[in-house]
Amino acid sequence: MRPSERTPDTLRAITLETAVNRYAEGSCLITAGHTKVLVTCTVEESLPGWLRGKGQGWVTAEYGMLPRATHTRGRREAAQGKQSGRTQEIQRLIGRSLRAVVDLKALGERQLTLDCDVVQADGGTRTASITGAWVALRLATKYLLDEGVLKVDPILDHVAAVSCGVFNGVPVLDLDYEEDSNAEADCNFVLTGAGDIVEIQATGEKRGFTRAEFESLYGLAEKGINELFAMQKTAVG
Amino acid sequence: MRPSERTPDTLRAITLETAVNRYAEGSCLITAGHTKVLVTCTVEESLPGWLRGKGQGWVTAEYGMLPRATHTRGRREAAQGKQSGRTQEIQRLIGRSLRAVVDLKALGERQLTLDCDVVQADGGTRTASITGAWVALRLATKYLLDEGVLKVDPILDHVAAVSCGVFNGVPVLDLDYEEDSNAEADCNFVLTGAGDIVEIQATGEKRGFTRAEFESLYGLAEKGINELFAMQKTAVG
Amino acid sequence: MRPSERTPDTLRAITLETAVNRYAEGSCLITAGHTKVLVTCTVEESLPGWLRGKGQGWVTAEYGMLPRATHTRGRREAAQGKQSGRTQEIQRLIGRSLRAVVDLKALGERQLTLDCDVVQADGGTRTASITGAWVALRLATKYLLDEGVLKVDPILDHVAAVSCGVFNGVPVLDLDYEEDSNAEADCNFVLTGAGDIVEIQATGEKRGFTRAEFESLYGLAEKGINELFAMQKTAVG
Amino acid sequence: MRPSERTPDTLRAITLETAVNRYAEGSCLITAGHTKVLVTCTVEESLPGWLRGKGQGWVTAEYGMLPRATHTRGRREAAQGKQSGRTQEIQRLIGRSLRAVVDLKALGERQLTLDCDVVQADGGTRTASITGAWVALRLATKYLLDEGVLKVDPILDHVAAVSCGVFNGVPVLDLDYEEDSNAEADCNFVLTGAGDIVEIQATGEKRGFTRAEFESLYGLAEKGINELFAMQKTAVG
Amino acid sequence: MRPSERTPDTLRAITLETAVNRYAEGSCLITAGHTKVLVTCTVEESLPGWLRGKGQGWVTAEYGMLPRATHTRGRREAAQGKQSGRTQEIQRLIGRSLRAVVDLKALGERQLTLDCDVVQADGGTRTASITGAWVALRLATKYLLDEGVLKVDPILDHVAAVSCGVFNGVPVLDLDYEEDSNAEADCNFVLTGAGDIVEIQATGEKRGFTRAEFESLYGLAEKGINELFAMQKTAVG
Amino acid sequence: MRPSERTPDTLRAITLETAVNRYAEGSCLITAGHTKVLVTCTVEESLPGWLRGKGQGWVTAEYGMLPRATHTRGRREAAQGKQSGRTQEIQRLIGRSLRAVVDLKALGERQLTLDCDVVQADGGTRTASITGAWVALRLATKYLLDEGVLKVDPILDHVAAVSCGVFNGVPVLDLDYEEDSNAEADCNFVLTGAGDIVEIQATGEKRGFTRAEFESLYGLAEKGINELFAMQKTAVG
Repeated sequence: MRPSERTPDTLRAITLETAVNRYAEGSCLITAGHTKVLVTCTVEESLPGWLRGKGQGWVTAEYGMLPRATHTRGRREAAQGKQSGRTQEIQRLIGRSLRAVVDLKALGERQLTLDCDVVQADGGTRTASITGAWVALRLATKYLLDEGVLKVDPILDHVAAVSCGVFNGVPVLDLDYEEDSNAEADCNFVLTGAGDIVEIQATGEKRGFTRAEFESLYGLAEKGINELFAMQKTAVG
Repeated sequence: MRPSERTPDTLRAITLETAVNRYAEGSCLITAGHTKVLVTCTVEESLPGWLRGKGQGWVTAEYGMLPRATHTRGRREAAQGKQSGRTQEIQRLIGRSLRAVVDLKALGERQLTLDCDVVQADGGTRTASITGAWVALRLATKYLLDEGVLKVDPILDHVAAVSCGVFNGVPVLDLDYEEDSNAEADCNFVLTGAGDIVEIQATGEKRGFTRAEFESLYGLAEKGINELFAMQKTAVG
Repeated sequence: MRPSERTPDTLRAITLETAVNRYAEGSCLITAGHTKVLVTCTVEESLPGWLRGKGQGWVTAEYGMLPRATHTRGRREAAQGKQSGRTQEIQRLIGRSLRAVVDLKALGERQLTLDCDVVQADGGTRTASITGAWVALRLATKYLLDEGVLKVDPILDHVAAVSCGVFNGVPVLDLDYEEDSNAEADCNFVLTGAGDIVEIQATGEKRGFTRAEFESLYGLAEKGINELFAMQKTAVG
Repeated sequence: MRPSERTPDTLRAITLETAVNRYAEGSCLITAGHTKVLVTCTVEESLPGWLRGKGQGWVTAEYGMLPRATHTRGRREAAQGKQSGRTQEIQRLIGRSLRAVVDLKALGERQLTLDCDVVQADGGTRTASITGAWVALRLATKYLLDEGVLKVDPILDHVAAVSCGVFNGVPVLDLDYEEDSNAEADCNFVLTGAGDIVEIQATGEKRGFTRAEFESLYGLAEKGINELFAMQKTAVG
Repeated sequence: MRPSERTPDTLRAITLETAVNRYAEGSCLITAGHTKVLVTCTVEESLPGWLRGKGQGWVTAEYGMLPRATHTRGRREAAQGKQSGRTQEIQRLIGRSLRAVVDLKALGERQLTLDCDVVQADGGTRTASITGAWVALRLATKYLLDEGVLKVDPILDHVAAVSCGVFNGVPVLDLDYEEDSNAEADCNFVLTGAGDIVEIQATGEKRGFTRAEFESLYGLAEKGINELFAMQKTAVG
Repeated sequence: MRPSERTPDTLRAITLETAVNRYAEGSCLITAGHTKVLVTCTVEESLPGWLRGKGQGWVTAEYGMLPRATHTRGRREAAQGKQSGRTQEIQRLIGRSLRAVVDLKALGERQLTLDCDVVQADGGTRTASITGAWVALRLATKYLLDEGVLKVDPILDHVAAVSCGVFNGVPVLDLDYEEDSNAEADCNFVLTGAGDIVEIQATGEKRGFTRAEFESLYGLAEKGINELFAMQKTAVG
């Protein structure tokens, strides 16, 4: 039995609230159970130096956690003077995941930055960030299309993500923190609307796990992510 | 005429929502017009080294802004590798303001940290942080009293803050961003429930301003802060 | 009775020695009792990037303390790898205070940097820095006028500063360290020659303090600063 | 046709040279084609603070690249003042991979650090690091067993890693740099001697890739890693 | 002819003013021509962790330059966030030079820190720092002996330093900045009262220089340093 | 008797292996007894900003030690976030030493960077770095001449370095770690093929040492460096 009493193939309650920031070109507050991530998408008409003059744009992401997003207070990275390895790993993943479904040439020479700030954490913050960031990105590019700044839609497909794991020997969908911290295996799947793989990160936490278990997790992820795509569609209208 | 069409002595619409974080011992989301600051109060049963063994506790604050809290995206301080001078100045002010109304001996050897994170900014984020932080602090100490961890209430009085300024030659209460960026003078007042001064920071922005103008601003601040005290009382029940 | 045996409205012995650095365009060693701050004004024919091409100049300040300026040795900020929040707060204050009396357009596209280095500290280093920095700035701009680099005098007025506080229940002028560390209230006043407010920073140290006390401190500050203006005039000839 | 003229399921020429450092408790120079990684294993009789007193040891890894390990010179991270996100991601992966096959309790309260320094890079440095680090770790623990410091062997199994990818539409084993920088998909597999998954990192580089392609890569990885296990066995005698 | 019209074997005008800081246990302002270095010696009854419990003390040095100590303003190291390689090299040299004439066991478990801050620079700041630091150290240890804190004098000998160089083909003593920046060779000599070598740093600036030239410089240094010893004796009474 | 059983004027076994890196324009692995330094020379067709447009090139060096190059593991500077004072001092010395024998104008507007990475340390790493760096530099410039990028050979002479010291009262050539850590004096000599001084760094470790001892060390260094020149000639063919 899962601590949340969900069946193995059930997602947490997910909401995708849009237009939650008065200034951002696109924004989304994604809630997955007790996990809450605020995502804004900022459009800037300039590019980092190494990308200028190549006739394409860029999509990047930054990730952060408010200090008390967690059970015990974590130290503020700004006060620490650096982002942890974990933070950098996550924001690189989010950026790669979104670029996989964007036509950078169609963006033109501008940069879109997805800021994913975890307001409350209960497991799955990186996958929630990806799912929510797609919504914010979709809204920002829609705005650019509506304004006539973009002529061609640069968004090629949906992308969404979920974590699955083996908990008490059972493959389950969408781990919460209590499951995650006791799971035998933890896999993050990032898939496109077409069902293709953008990224898989599978980690055996306590022991290695088998290929058969991995295949079960993959199946659960496909089910869950398809549900997320439907919610994304509703959210962006 | 003020851009917001308020009269000179009118506060913005203020709300103080409590219990907005599932883990923190006290929390408050303060809204002042379009300014939104999420405050959590964390209780830790340990002290920084320089304070240990002195038979007293400590109250401190940290302040941050989400990158897209503002009209244009600001750089993330964690990515920059340091907190700006402005951030440090503000968090020092918040800490001092709250310590002014706390009996540190009554706290015992524990630390209370107020994290003030600006989710959306439209002027007055440091004063909103102070007003909201008092609520979060009050709730956290109430929790410690209810749990029997504290025997004596360490909170000595209310504290709240507001900014006033001279805008188009007229002294006005509670500047929003549009006013703030065009004001001739900008004063932050932090007062106790008893009406005493905790901190005044008065700055002539474009020209110096006169003692008479300063006295008008002081009067407006007293009016506004008294209204904030009433809202704090309601919020903490 | 004050530890220094001064009456409540008496400044410490102040001297303003000029031309103390062989290279700087303007320089001043200000002594206030045992507090000594060495100020140099450097003229550079370039501006930080964000200011270029706007047809105006800039005045900025940096502040530092020699490690053994104080009773016990403080850590060297360069060795620490960062300036403290206090240092940044002070240097921002000094810069703002001087810009309040400078016509930046008349300066042309050049930057003037005031370096304020505390050689010995006995309270009031930030206010002494401001008072001395005006002298160094005045001398540097005079030099630019004499050389024909500037055609119009960019200095609009005097600016000087002093701290006042409530010590043993009595409002007193120009706190030294012993008073400052035991004061009930500590207020820094920065005023122009015309008597206008550039900046007021009032802090209740142990308890809040009353508006009546604040008004007394303001009166003392006006008296003291007028005396400083006279000394500045003598110093710059 | 692969640039190296290998068949799709052929590893590069691999060598595992041991005892390459005169001081380290275990060491290995792994060569995979033109990729060369020098790995040392250091035993220290102390633990980081957060691990002390828990009756277990720790295995950790650090990763670096000499500046001219690559075609064009990369900036030295020590001179930059920080490790890149990529570096941190890799060293976290190496540490996790090794801990998966170590009984930390059997290690006792000591730390083993694997330093993986890339002397020359031609793709696959992170997977080569893992494969070589197991050898260095095995030798260091053997030394501790021989010396009687350890009574029980803490090494539970082999671990090795390889990258596979889709190059010109064909799934291939053990990507070199030329393939890696043009691959449609890049997957790193870290498996135990028992065939269990320690970690899978699959990334679609240009487009998403299909589940069927992923399964082919998985099969290639199992073949390649089994060959690596044989080489590890020979290397440690 | 030297720019300063000195003969090749003449030192600049040197003064050693003592007791220039009201708080430090020992202090000295050394002037060598236009070079001015303020040195304080601080006694602390504690040691860095790696030295504790070894029954000996430590002598260390820190070095800094005020930003406008030089013809053009240098950037403030505290604002830069780090000490330059040059600064670190110099402060390591000063510390080593002084430790060469101190019996660290006789010091007991305390640390003496020499802060050498260059107020004005015209060449030779590192050698002036050493010569002045000996005076400050002598005064601080004298104070500790007078107070009965030390029973045995830990100062074993004098140490002083000077730079010599080949300027326009002629070996000269005590280079000033104009000579230093055009010299063919630049050598710093640090010698003890007994005439022994503590440190020699010889650098060919434009071309290598000959052993014969080096021997001439050595002779000049011995002459100059003997004069410095006499001045040190006078300064410490 | 020396721990290595060498006579006082005998170098350690030295080897200079070239072309050890597949990408660098020049490379050399220098071995001196158990000390091993890998040097690469990188040619870049750009210069740091402060050197551009002056019609000359630049030669610079960076130095690092692998963490387990030493008996006990040292902390990785990249992980520490900064290079130590020692590292900076050494890399500045290497750069100066090589520039002394290069015609920077003949180089044209390009930069050559010597990366000296210590793979194993047993004393004398800075002098080995210089000797090996000359070989890598020679090979890289030869390559540029062969390719027709350079028309004139910018290398003016050989440069090599060795350390000498007083060990158990006897002057000896080429200290290893055991000698170095017990020597009474330690001198690094950097000389040109013509026998001129590029740099001498002489340090009295425990006591000062005499001029007569210094002269003996100088004689040993001249002998040893002449042997190194012969090996350099052989290495570069």
